[in-house]
Amino acid sequence: MNDPLSLVRSLVRELHPYVPGEQPKLKGLIKLNTNENPYPPSPKVLRAIRTAVDERLRLYPNPSAETLREKLAKFHRCAPENIIVGNGSDELLALSVRCFVEPGGMVQYFAPGYSLYPVLAATHGAMSVPASLQADFGLPKAWDIHAPLTFITSPNAPGGRGYTSAELENVCVRHKGALVLDEAYADFANENALELALKYQNVLVARTFSKGYSLCFLRVGYMAGHPTLISALHKIRDSYNVNGIAQIAATATLDDLAHYRKNFKRVIASRERTTADLRKLGFEVLPSQTNFVFTRPPRFPAKEWLDRLRARKILVRWFNHSGLEDRLRISIGSDAEMDALVRAVRAILK
Amino acid sequence: MNDPLSLVRSLVRELHPYVPGEQPKLKGLIKLNTNENPYPPSPKVLRAIRTAVDERLRLYPNPSAETLREKLAKFHRCAPENIIVGNGSDELLALSVRCFVEPGGMVQYFAPGYSLYPVLAATHGAMSVPASLQADFGLPKAWDIHAPLTFITSPNAPGGRGYTSAELENVCVRHKGALVLDEAYADFANENALELALKYQNVLVARTFSKGYSLCFLRVGYMAGHPTLISALHKIRDSYNVNGIAQIAATATLDDLAHYRKNFKRVIASRERTTADLRKLGFEVLPSQTNFVFTRPPRFPAKEWLDRLRARKILVRWFNHSGLEDRLRISIGSDAEMDALVRAVRAILK
Repeated sequence: MNDPLSLVRSLVRELHPYVPGEQPKLKGLIKLNTNENPYPPSPKVLRAIRTAVDERLRLYPNPSAETLREKLAKFHRCAPENIIVGNGSDELLALSVRCFVEPGGMVQYFAPGYSLYPVLAATHGAMSVPASLQADFGLPKAWDIHAPLTFITSPNAPGGRGYTSAELENVCVRHKGALVLDEAYADFANENALELALKYQNVLVARTFSKGYSLCFLRVGYMAGHPTLISALHKIRDSYNVNGIAQIAATATLDDLAHYRKNFKRVIASRERTTADLRKLGFEVLPSQTNFVFTRPPRFPAKEWLDRLRARKILVRWFNHSGLEDRLRISIGSDAEMDALVRAVRAILK
Repeated sequence: MNDPLSLVRSLVRELHPYVPGEQPKLKGLIKLNTNENPYPPSPKVLRAIRTAVDERLRLYPNPSAETLREKLAKFHRCAPENIIVGNGSDELLALSVRCFVEPGGMVQYFAPGYSLYPVLAATHGAMSVPASLQADFGLPKAWDIHAPLTFITSPNAPGGRGYTSAELENVCVRHKGALVLDEAYADFANENALELALKYQNVLVARTFSKGYSLCFLRVGYMAGHPTLISALHKIRDSYNVNGIAQIAATATLDDLAHYRKNFKRVIASRERTTADLRKLGFEVLPSQTNFVFTRPPRFPAKEWLDRLRARKILVRWFNHSGLEDRLRISIGSDAEMDALVRAVRAILK
């Protein structure tokens, strides 16, 4: 038998996969590294899930998440045909690449952005074409309006900057290729651009239940857009791509939005307080419209801060990417967690 | 704006997606169309899931299903590096195509087989190359041993025929490309070929928790094989591809195998009884090693049987594929459901 590696496509052999933030098994760590919500799902959602754990698990779930799509359509004042649900929004981002870009073609993204995009491009055998954001993470003045697919992380990650609908609409008006506005953090922002996906035939908005709705564990995301693009995405997804329990949890979430709106406000208040606290301690902190802050720490290199905070059982995120190595991304936890962070920073600075 | 369809790859525009069996919303239907297990998950599994429905849902699940892979490795006497878990085995079948076959390359499958394979090939821009089984669903005498990827449904679907490990090993010995033995129905068969995936560096075995373990709703499947092939598949999957609740349910399932082995026996007993009953009524029924039977009904065309049974609230599966149009695939339900089927057949024949 030959080396089994010879069976693997050379493209896959050469691939550097996306490395997600650590999910540590250690107890007692304060986890501010993967932008999870500090608050649990609502009691109504937990109850809806528990009630569903019965004989029905033996049956296939609804293959197109019909009930959930109907509810999302009502929420966004559109039709179920405008919506596709995915196994996390990551699945939908990957499907977009396969749906709109030929192998060898071009995946453009406003950079820095979600570091998954170039991985998705490479996995598909497509070229990654970053279009640089301005130094303050503002939208670029120029980019390739004909690229077959362009991703914009909005609000930006890891920068945290939000964009107005008017700014984004200027992009949509000029753009000719497919455009994905990746709104993973929209729930913590001043504005969102969902209406642009319903207005412009080439625009898709991606959302997730992970961040705002505390359902990371269950993997539910969705995209909204023109029925022609949405139905093309449906054609290439797995037939039963969304777990039935995930469908039920997301549906119950939409029935309890008042609960979550309170959480968004709490996270935003903690974010503003943390921003002020860290600035007082010499951190440069970019204004954020997300559930994290992107900071340039004082005195030591960012990598050293990562290690020193970890030694104090606080996990934050450092990106080993050119241009970002002097920064830390810190997720917004509960008030008690953010107090512990600030105390640890003070102790390290002493 | 141009027609949004112009943004969609021509390959996707021309695609005929896989059509899963109907998941009807009507109550009171006897559902014998998608090979679901008639028995619910074990009480221990339901309890393990309910216990897990808490605050943890806000966190990401383990990205590589570590605990589950460790348990599967013990079960199959291999290492966690031999295992990848997927969002249903469908996800892993799709990943195999993208991992081993260049666009424009060749996906071979023993035919008839799971009708998803040619859809996966088309979605990837690859060619579908069926290698015909013998008339009795026996393995072919010849096929392309150099095809980059070959799927074998074992036991066969929709035929139901099982293959001995010795027969399959003869295929593995000769074969040079990557070979996936798709063992979705192995729990109802006399033999399985998992050891071939651990012995031959080019062989992968795919399994699912859907059929034998009554977890369709939660989407869990896995593949076993050489670490080099497995790690290539890991590189191209979504980072958090397996729902956390699904990981917990599958892990608890492996702790309660005795419960499920009883279910396998019950399904097999019902299958044998149904085979005998249908034969008495003039149906040609192939010997089955799965949880369904593939039959040629008497008197009326199979499509008419489908409609007449549906009128009596019994749903079975008919394939509008050349060579299969005269057959019905009937999943094995509970004894009461199979009695109802036989009564309905008798009434229709009158």
